[in-house]
Amino acid sequence: MSDPAPDTLQLTGTGRLRNFIGIDGLPRAILEEILDTAASFVDVGDRAIKKVPLLRGKTVINLFFEASTRTRTTFELAAKRLSADVLNMDIARSSTSKGESLMDMLRNLEAMSADMFIVRHGDSGAAHYIARHATPDVAIINAGDGRHAHPTQAMLDMYTIRHYKGRFEGLKVAIIGDILHSRVARSQIHALNILGAEEVRVVAPKTLLPVDIESLGVTVCTDLNQGLRDADVVIALRLQKERMDSALLPSESEFFRLYGLTNDRLRAAHPDAIVMHPGPINRGVEIASEVADGERSVILHQVTFGIAVRMAVMSMCMSGRETERDDSLTPERPHATTR
Amino acid sequence: MSDPAPDTLQLTGTGRLRNFIGIDGLPRAILEEILDTAASFVDVGDRAIKKVPLLRGKTVINLFFEASTRTRTTFELAAKRLSADVLNMDIARSSTSKGESLMDMLRNLEAMSADMFIVRHGDSGAAHYIARHATPDVAIINAGDGRHAHPTQAMLDMYTIRHYKGRFEGLKVAIIGDILHSRVARSQIHALNILGAEEVRVVAPKTLLPVDIESLGVTVCTDLNQGLRDADVVIALRLQKERMDSALLPSESEFFRLYGLTNDRLRAAHPDAIVMHPGPINRGVEIASEVADGERSVILHQVTFGIAVRMAVMSMCMSGRETERDDSLTPERPHATTR
Amino acid sequence: MSDPAPDTLQLTGTGRLRNFIGIDGLPRAILEEILDTAASFVDVGDRAIKKVPLLRGKTVINLFFEASTRTRTTFELAAKRLSADVLNMDIARSSTSKGESLMDMLRNLEAMSADMFIVRHGDSGAAHYIARHATPDVAIINAGDGRHAHPTQAMLDMYTIRHYKGRFEGLKVAIIGDILHSRVARSQIHALNILGAEEVRVVAPKTLLPVDIESLGVTVCTDLNQGLRDADVVIALRLQKERMDSALLPSESEFFRLYGLTNDRLRAAHPDAIVMHPGPINRGVEIASEVADGERSVILHQVTFGIAVRMAVMSMCMSGRETERDDSLTPERPHATTR
Repeated sequence: MSDPAPDTLQLTGTGRLRNFIGIDGLPRAILEEILDTAASFVDVGDRAIKKVPLLRGKTVINLFFEASTRTRTTFELAAKRLSADVLNMDIARSSTSKGESLMDMLRNLEAMSADMFIVRHGDSGAAHYIARHATPDVAIINAGDGRHAHPTQAMLDMYTIRHYKGRFEGLKVAIIGDILHSRVARSQIHALNILGAEEVRVVAPKTLLPVDIESLGVTVCTDLNQGLRDADVVIALRLQKERMDSALLPSESEFFRLYGLTNDRLRAAHPDAIVMHPGPINRGVEIASEVADGERSVILHQVTFGIAVRMAVMSMCMSGRETERDDSLTPERPHATTR
Repeated sequence: MSDPAPDTLQLTGTGRLRNFIGIDGLPRAILEEILDTAASFVDVGDRAIKKVPLLRGKTVINLFFEASTRTRTTFELAAKRLSADVLNMDIARSSTSKGESLMDMLRNLEAMSADMFIVRHGDSGAAHYIARHATPDVAIINAGDGRHAHPTQAMLDMYTIRHYKGRFEGLKVAIIGDILHSRVARSQIHALNILGAEEVRVVAPKTLLPVDIESLGVTVCTDLNQGLRDADVVIALRLQKERMDSALLPSESEFFRLYGLTNDRLRAAHPDAIVMHPGPINRGVEIASEVADGERSVILHQVTFGIAVRMAVMSMCMSGRETERDDSLTPERPHATTR
Repeated sequence: MSDPAPDTLQLTGTGRLRNFIGIDGLPRAILEEILDTAASFVDVGDRAIKKVPLLRGKTVINLFFEASTRTRTTFELAAKRLSADVLNMDIARSSTSKGESLMDMLRNLEAMSADMFIVRHGDSGAAHYIARHATPDVAIINAGDGRHAHPTQAMLDMYTIRHYKGRFEGLKVAIIGDILHSRVARSQIHALNILGAEEVRVVAPKTLLPVDIESLGVTVCTDLNQGLRDADVVIALRLQKERMDSALLPSESEFFRLYGLTNDRLRAAHPDAIVMHPGPINRGVEIASEVADGERSVILHQVTFGIAVRMAVMSMCMSGRETERDDSLTPERPHATTR
């Protein structure tokens, strides 16, 4: 099978979402549908009964090849609030350790009539690879792959921006810090450009900037004050200490001195600017506590919106596939075949 | 914010349970309400369908900073029988390992619209600290903190005593063994005194007795026969081998010789005395098998009652908070705020 | 208590299934009832809502003393599709590490009103031992014990054979590979003989054959071509590399050269022969990819049927016990007793 274009991988013939691997290549209408659908889920978290039956009786499998309790928890919570059955697969302990290939493991999970894989992997392109080789019965959602993408994080950031700014047109957005290792930054840049932000700035030392970054449609600043000037939205990225070889960075205190967000520095931004961070935050490294806990910060609201956005993506992929199945011949389950 | 008195931390303005951190400072009426509520849950375990819908659509998070499969299992079971959605957080693998602070982790879980944290921690006061800093939206239940308290264990013990003795008035209760390291003993002593037991005796070698123990309102015995004399209830504590430096104890066999419960020793107790143990038991160390498996033993019944007592505490905290929310202005969720 | 015969351990007085420990000693009617019941569950995996309420409000505990993510997942999925509440016990981290005995741990779980234990253990006979000592309230299902048995795997294999061949009478079945370490092979042999297969052949080098194997009612072949001749069903076993000391085996490539399944070798089998494997497969060791992925292979269909077969065994044991309870006096729960 030849590698389909990302859109046919992510969208059905009638343009509905079927997988959610990356923002790149998705039409603006789909991103806006995700935001609108999420809006209808936001208040589920406030109800006495925090559940809707949309995924009732569906099997969602958390396939985490890279440990991330926080992200796994948000997806597990979103799936349970949609009334799905959730299985957590600890891949480290799985048969892969018995020498089974990734593809054989996936085929087995598919044969158990799983409906959705939430995939977290340390290698860029892993979710895309899995989506290309998975059966049409299973929806694939990318929960972060290497340095490539973290699309649900980007969409919850878009939700947060739209919630507080009401629009994307005319917005100046500054993304600050470790762009080089950040799958979040890549997904944010794609989403902001598709949704029509006026300007996306990446602010970082040269050592933490990918060589090809301008090609994504961003302004590059190596000076923080210049990067913050009149910004409506300021996004600090987590310093991926665990992924960095010291060569790239003098020291944490040096990084904070040059790129750490403080109230003083934020004076350069627009008076109504909001401050965002994907978390977990390193206080005193990329962001000062006075900012993280300050009135401009919407960091915890991002977390709340994140559950709703993940519920939206899950339910859209599921209904997209159901339409797809109705339109085509129902794919046969193994047991339906005879010889 | 100043540290509120324990009762305002644990009770609403109208005197309903909102957190369950420790027995100390709770009124007798609340302890009795827990026992009465548990009584209504005890037979749920016998039904064909072992579920009641009281926590349906609520999100309960097991925050275990200290591994305890047994305690985690009882809370998970109790929550599921109340129809809650349960998430188990393996803190060792969580973002705390990425240098995130405890408070930042809690803020994140709160922002996911969690309703209840079940907290197990190796440090005394951890649950109290978390309850003081948590949002009003989340109920905190202490599942054991350091040497301080294990209140649900104490309440299941009280349930067991009331079930077999029908009252607390006039009862002599002997608590035997490693008092020094036992959060269970501290909680039991508070509960027995609040509920009106006639006499609470702690029986242990001087090296396993806290210096301040009399101040809790107990009789101290270093001799087992004296401690057992006419006791109506005999509680053997687990010898916390893993917490002891050998200096405190000559040897296990020596401990058994002096303080181990045997049928022979139990002759000193009241003829109808019951024998209890929080488990897991060390056979031949603090208790002989002939006693653990004997007719006076109600150890396994404690486990059964434990599920009902945990269901009672969880449902009382949840309804207490709902009344609290109705009485006050509904606390705003992040997304409800605007700028 | 004396060791009851397997059938009274596995069957109620009226001949209904109450535990599922091993195939040996079960009547043909029960095996056929399992297959027929599974047939009614197979299409649950195709429904929009993959759930039936048969185990609603029941507590199923996965007691895995030996890690097996794959098998644990299939049982967890089967239990959830029956609407049961599932608890996964990580025994390595449990109180057994605190020196609690296996029996004390089981008594505790029973006292929590568990309905079913799914037992996986490295020692042969572990599930049988647990079933002998468990209360009548808990059904025990063997998910693999040492080299002894893996009965649900064998029954899903029987389901697969009956699905594709429509019968057992007159069938020649070849089981190839590491017979010595295979609990699966033992259970398959018992099931095939009970269900009336014409001939069961085991094909392996002498070093991978148990001494007593003929006594199970099989033909032994050490030559693959001879073993495959006119076979209707070909079952390749996983080479249990992790259990083998090199002494038993020259090398993987040597094993493949002599016993590995290839299309070329399969020419000796019946033209309509199906190829099965319990998984996970070692490509190029016991089976060539051309065979595993070929048109004769029904390996993934076995996985799909496995969920239905496990649902069948679980629901049969549960209803068998309910009839048993109704027929006898209801066993008293601890709290029902008084003194």
